[in-house]
Amino acid sequence: MRAVAEIIEPALSPQSVTILGATGSIGKSTLDVVAGSGGKFRIEALTAMENVSALAALARLYRPRFVAIGNPAHFAALKDALAGTGIRAGAGAEALVEAAMQPAGTVVSAIVGVAGLASTMAAAKRGARIALANKECLVAAGTLLTQAAKAGGAKLIPVDSEHNALFQVFDAARPESVRQVTLTASGGPFRTWSLEQMRSATPEMAVKHPNWAMGAKISVDSATMMNKGLELIEAFHLFPLKAEQIEVLVHPESIVHGLVEYVDGSVLAQLSNPDMRTPIACALAWPERLQAAVKRLNLAELKTLTFEAPDVQRFSALALARRALAEGVTVALNAANEAAVEAFLAGRIGFLDIAKTVEATLAKVENAEPSTLEEVFEADAQARAIAQSLLKRVAA
Amino acid sequence: MRAVAEIIEPALSPQSVTILGATGSIGKSTLDVVAGSGGKFRIEALTAMENVSALAALARLYRPRFVAIGNPAHFAALKDALAGTGIRAGAGAEALVEAAMQPAGTVVSAIVGVAGLASTMAAAKRGARIALANKECLVAAGTLLTQAAKAGGAKLIPVDSEHNALFQVFDAARPESVRQVTLTASGGPFRTWSLEQMRSATPEMAVKHPNWAMGAKISVDSATMMNKGLELIEAFHLFPLKAEQIEVLVHPESIVHGLVEYVDGSVLAQLSNPDMRTPIACALAWPERLQAAVKRLNLAELKTLTFEAPDVQRFSALALARRALAEGVTVALNAANEAAVEAFLAGRIGFLDIAKTVEATLAKVENAEPSTLEEVFEADAQARAIAQSLLKRVAA
Repeated sequence: MRAVAEIIEPALSPQSVTILGATGSIGKSTLDVVAGSGGKFRIEALTAMENVSALAALARLYRPRFVAIGNPAHFAALKDALAGTGIRAGAGAEALVEAAMQPAGTVVSAIVGVAGLASTMAAAKRGARIALANKECLVAAGTLLTQAAKAGGAKLIPVDSEHNALFQVFDAARPESVRQVTLTASGGPFRTWSLEQMRSATPEMAVKHPNWAMGAKISVDSATMMNKGLELIEAFHLFPLKAEQIEVLVHPESIVHGLVEYVDGSVLAQLSNPDMRTPIACALAWPERLQAAVKRLNLAELKTLTFEAPDVQRFSALALARRALAEGVTVALNAANEAAVEAFLAGRIGFLDIAKTVEATLAKVENAEPSTLEEVFEADAQARAIAQSLLKRVAA
Repeated sequence: MRAVAEIIEPALSPQSVTILGATGSIGKSTLDVVAGSGGKFRIEALTAMENVSALAALARLYRPRFVAIGNPAHFAALKDALAGTGIRAGAGAEALVEAAMQPAGTVVSAIVGVAGLASTMAAAKRGARIALANKECLVAAGTLLTQAAKAGGAKLIPVDSEHNALFQVFDAARPESVRQVTLTASGGPFRTWSLEQMRSATPEMAVKHPNWAMGAKISVDSATMMNKGLELIEAFHLFPLKAEQIEVLVHPESIVHGLVEYVDGSVLAQLSNPDMRTPIACALAWPERLQAAVKRLNLAELKTLTFEAPDVQRFSALALARRALAEGVTVALNAANEAAVEAFLAGRIGFLDIAKTVEATLAKVENAEPSTLEEVFEADAQARAIAQSLLKRVAA
């Protein structure tokens, strides 16, 4: 029977995939898509930052050649858990890079934060297909990463639902035929709130996202719309566009994820239910398509899709992101935002203080885009220090 | 200055276009796009059926090499009007075919009805790009035309807004990755009417289309939704799909024109304001894009897009079209519908009698797809005769 399957399904020869950040939400969804692909993919390497038991369990299930844990304190536990499997283990930042260097055709970049930069750069330099889910790679090091990808022959395919949507309908061979692209935004939990109401918003109110189940940090970013500001910066690096060609449109149902307007008046859009397995399947298989076990979109059942322009008065994060992009200080934007959101979640500052802290930080940093990863880390640390000192003053 | 223009704009070397049906609505919109293209296109040949003065005026403006009038009675008038221009003139059905045979890279097929079949077939056989706006070419002779196009190396690009939408987002290289396509329908003026109300609908009520300015026949087809039934048949011939993969979705705003659902859950759609210049520009320039002077789509201004499943009880034309496609009697479907709509517009039958007449005609014709153009004309005449005799009985 095996032989017959091989004869009738020659396209099923497995492609190899490495997942950087395998135990997080994107990592799990990727493994779900891989498991449902009928053997089209095999796992080359897996990494996690802290969750050593989950990583070991995945390794025993998917049998990669190499596994890396970011926190070196867990190295012994990882080796113990993999004893007798023949799977090689590593630990620390260098091991994450080593995982990215394994000869997988596709690397899923899903480590959260700047911790994902070095490994993703390594994958770019060796010319892998990179299914990119890490925001900081583009927000903090967009020029560096896209240059490395170009030099190495790597292909960046965004996994973020909005950018993946644009990727699917953007004619990369003819960017001059594109007039504008639009990223949609749910508008978050405070879409219809007044500034006065937003002033007294609590962390509990801010983390209630209407459509996606997400972590606390990104939920707050959705509430301030800084999330969309960061995505605007990502789009700028992913597509050959000027900043003013990238628009944001509030669309509370989160069904239309991105739209590309062409000069002939055609607007091409990608729609789907909010399920990350769809963009992940797209990024793994493009230009082929993988069957994904997601709920089919049913517009007749949804009945209505609504749209509105974002209110930049109430959601100043959008304007801050444009300013940071223009001034080359997107590293500081991201670092100050992380520090401010942390302070908000800890109850130390009010909701509107998040954007104020970011704005005040941007005013104090040097306007110069970093040209090495070291400069990125430096700019990041500097902006965090400035933001922290500002936060102490606000909280006092 | 001429030399400089040639150096800086090498891409502007004009492509040649022939318009079959130049004085109609599609013909006019095509000439509008050509005029706005900055000299990218030049007109090779123009035709019209009856309107000799408009045809001559267009010829004097666009200076084609050849001009043909369908009705031979107007030949002398055409020759007189073009005297001294050096433009060659022809008349009759053979002259329409001769126009299609002129060496234009693109032929816009915009003659209304079966009168457009022979010339479009001629363009297909010589391997032209065909911007297809004539419905009957696919409804009555879909298999013949697509076979001729394949054999001649012609490329069919649909101009109908729904099919052009599908064309833009359908991955023709990987039809197996498509799960379903959806044609949207405005639902017409009787979308929310009960069957009882529809029974007493007058021609005046039926021709009031909510979104598009169209002729009386096609407006009635929109009111019965036979228009969408015919489009379903067209889609079947244009794309490598099974009939059950083609769905119809009511979308009263006519902004989303067509959607392609892929197996990974992604749904790609084309949106635009209802303006035929957008699909025409697409068909002329594909895969390039032409600037078209259309109103830009503004979803924030539109605010809401709505969708609902079509009611096949009230709009039985959709089911009739599927049945005709399955039984190979789409010629009869179209012919009987034309006869019935004419009778309805003349006040001889009621609105609901249109679908009833079509259904009764289908029950009486032979189930066999025509394999030559002659057989198409025969089947067409036979179905019309059956429909007429049925109509006499209904009207009596």
